[in-house]
Amino acid sequence: MKFLYEEDIINRIGEKRFKHTLRVVDTAKELAQIYGADLEKTKIAAYYHDCAKIKDYDKLIEECRKYDLKLTKEMKAAPQIIHSYLGAIIAEKKYGVKDKEILNAIRYHTTGRESMTLLEKIVFLADYIEPMRNFNGVERARELAKVNLDNAVYFSLNNTLSHLCKSNDYIVLDTVKARNFILEMEDGKIF
Amino acid sequence: MKFLYEEDIINRIGEKRFKHTLRVVDTAKELAQIYGADLEKTKIAAYYHDCAKIKDYDKLIEECRKYDLKLTKEMKAAPQIIHSYLGAIIAEKKYGVKDKEILNAIRYHTTGRESMTLLEKIVFLADYIEPMRNFNGVERARELAKVNLDNAVYFSLNNTLSHLCKSNDYIVLDTVKARNFILEMEDGKIF
Repeated sequence: MKFLYEEDIINRIGEKRFKHTLRVVDTAKELAQIYGADLEKTKIAAYYHDCAKIKDYDKLIEECRKYDLKLTKEMKAAPQIIHSYLGAIIAEKKYGVKDKEILNAIRYHTTGRESMTLLEKIVFLADYIEPMRNFNGVERARELAKVNLDNAVYFSLNNTLSHLCKSNDYIVLDTVKARNFILEMEDGKIF
Repeated sequence: MKFLYEEDIINRIGEKRFKHTLRVVDTAKELAQIYGADLEKTKIAAYYHDCAKIKDYDKLIEECRKYDLKLTKEMKAAPQIIHSYLGAIIAEKKYGVKDKEILNAIRYHTTGRESMTLLEKIVFLADYIEPMRNFNGVERARELAKVNLDNAVYFSLNNTLSHLCKSNDYIVLDTVKARNFILEMEDGKIF
């Protein structure tokens, strides 16, 4: 598959991050095949998910200004979520993505949110488990991803929350809401 | 100190839970002395904090109906928080507590909330560390309670969140907000 705007994206996020993006595309395609998601939409959402992952904080903020993204209290407290919101805007305004479902999958790929769509879950999870990821819990998330998407997403969200507790970092409320939502939906029958 | 309505409270929550209440009163008094809180208000808030901790779920719900407490989505998902809200209502309507600060200390003693008052922090923490409490982390919370109230409350909230992640239980958003608020206030300088 040949993607558009490759050079522009690499200029913004760097070669290394772009390689991560391509791995997420592959992982997301696999998940889409297992869970019956629209393959074309999945590829596009995965391809653009990190298009705004700018390493340098000042440059990131400059880009937010350029695209009129006003930083919320939570974005200031947890700057690692900014690129998802900015990415959805750049994908729409610069790369011409009009599909709301794709844009939301980009927007919520870091935090998750309540009542995630199939596409949102796939992009979130693909980003979490792509083959080069290496952290406590990733193997379990990969196993679950093959058999139960909701359990895999729940596990990943919950694992993230555990880590944020351990590292004393800000916890984004959408992540808690996303986790609670699946827990309630599954009626507590997780794993 | 002689408290009012002792028999009525014991009838509702049982002898064992009432003894816990008296330990929370003692612990809260100690904290009030260290951190300069109003001693009288502290004693009243601690004394009534569990006045609605009814063991039997059906009886608890019956009492909620009697006092017109409408259960929220979160109360249904995490029933262990109901007694705090009900307790504030019973303390006001039946025991004549009018002071809003005391009522809020009762109302938020289980979950915490954003921008807790000194009194709210003291009742929350006293309930968490009273001498008979015995769980992972309680010793650390007790140590912190002697030297830094905010750090102690943060640690307790964060420890609760860690446990809820481990046990795959619903996480109440107020607890996350309370934790994040202190983290932000302390500018990440926790412990």
